[in-house]
Amino acid sequence: MTEPTVKLSKAFTLLEPGPVVLVTTHDGKRSNVMTISWTMVVDFRPRFAITTGAWNHSYKALKKTRECVIAIPTVDMLDTVVGIGACSGADTDKFAKFNLTALPGKRVKAPLIKECLANIECRVVEIIRRHDIVVLEGVAAHEASSRKERRTLHAVGDGTFIVGGRRLDRRRQMKGKIPAGV
Amino acid sequence: MTEPTVKLSKAFTLLEPGPVVLVTTHDGKRSNVMTISWTMVVDFRPRFAITTGAWNHSYKALKKTRECVIAIPTVDMLDTVVGIGACSGADTDKFAKFNLTALPGKRVKAPLIKECLANIECRVVEIIRRHDIVVLEGVAAHEASSRKERRTLHAVGDGTFIVGGRRLDRRRQMKGKIPAGV
Repeated sequence: MTEPTVKLSKAFTLLEPGPVVLVTTHDGKRSNVMTISWTMVVDFRPRFAITTGAWNHSYKALKKTRECVIAIPTVDMLDTVVGIGACSGADTDKFAKFNLTALPGKRVKAPLIKECLANIECRVVEIIRRHDIVVLEGVAAHEASSRKERRTLHAVGDGTFIVGGRRLDRRRQMKGKIPAGV
Repeated sequence: MTEPTVKLSKAFTLLEPGPVVLVTTHDGKRSNVMTISWTMVVDFRPRFAITTGAWNHSYKALKKTRECVIAIPTVDMLDTVVGIGACSGADTDKFAKFNLTALPGKRVKAPLIKECLANIECRVVEIIRRHDIVVLEGVAAHEASSRKERRTLHAVGDGTFIVGGRRLDRRRQMKGKIPAGV
C-alpha cells in the first residue's frame, strides 16, 4: 500500500497551520524518528525550516544524508507523538516501539510513516548552525486522502496540546493572495 | 491601560502552537502592521524566526529599526487578520482602517495591539537574506490574562483557517522535557 501523491504546490498547506510533526531519517542502516514542533514554511516551492541540532539523535543522520521526511500525525496519535519525544533513537528502535509502519519514499531514503495523515519528502538546502535552523526543500508529498481523522495537534510547549478545531473559509477574500495550484 | 507582563521564559508558548500573527513596526513616523503565518520558535530564551522580505512594506521599517512586536490575534479577529494581509502600509494607515489601538511597548518603539490576546516585543538578531528568514529575540511579553476569547487562528494557506480547539494535557508525561519556569 502506498499513499496518494499530493501536488508539491499544495504541500506547504500541510505545515502552514503549525502542527506538531514527526521527522524521520535513515542513516544507511536504521530508520529513526523525532517529534518537532519548531517548524516554519519559508517558500511556496515548497521550502521549510525546522529547528534542530546535536541534542537530537536524528540530527547526525539528517546532517550526513541531507534527507528527511516530515510526517503529520493527527490527534489520535498524541501518545505516540509524546512518546517519540521522550526517548532517543540512540538506544531505541522507535518504529518498533511505537508500532509505526515505514513506507518507502519516492525521492529520499528516509521512510514515510503510514499511520500519519501526510508525509513530505525533503532534502536539506542548508544548515544554519549558529541558529540551529535547517532549511529543507520538499521534493515529494503524500496525503492519506481517505483518512477519517484529520485533526492535527498543536504543541503549546508546556506539556499541553491544542487540537485543530473547525475550519473558517475566507477563500474569496484572499483570492489575490493564494498562489496558483493551491 | 496596559496589559499584564508575562514572564519571558513563557513567551515561546504563545507562538509554538503556530497561530497566525500580526507583526507591528514603527518607522520613526508611522506604525504599520502585517499578517504573518510563517513563524517558528528557535529557542526558549525566547527566540523566534519569521519569514518576510521586501514584498512586505513593513520589511523596510523592520530592517531599519531592527525592532517589531509579534501580536497574537484570536478567532473573533479573523476579518481583521485577513484584511491586514490584503492591503499595504504603503498607502493605508492600517491601525486606523482596522480600529486597532496602539499601546506603547516597554522595550521597543513598535506598538502593542491592545485588541490582541498577547504581544511579544522583539529585537532583530539577524536577517538571513538568502532565505528571507528574520531571527528575533523576545525582550518583553504581555498577555491579556482576563480576556475571554483565547482561541487562536491557524492559517492553512489556501484561504481557510483552522480554529484552535480543545486542549489535551500531557504535562505529566512530558515533565522532563519542559524547561523551568514554563
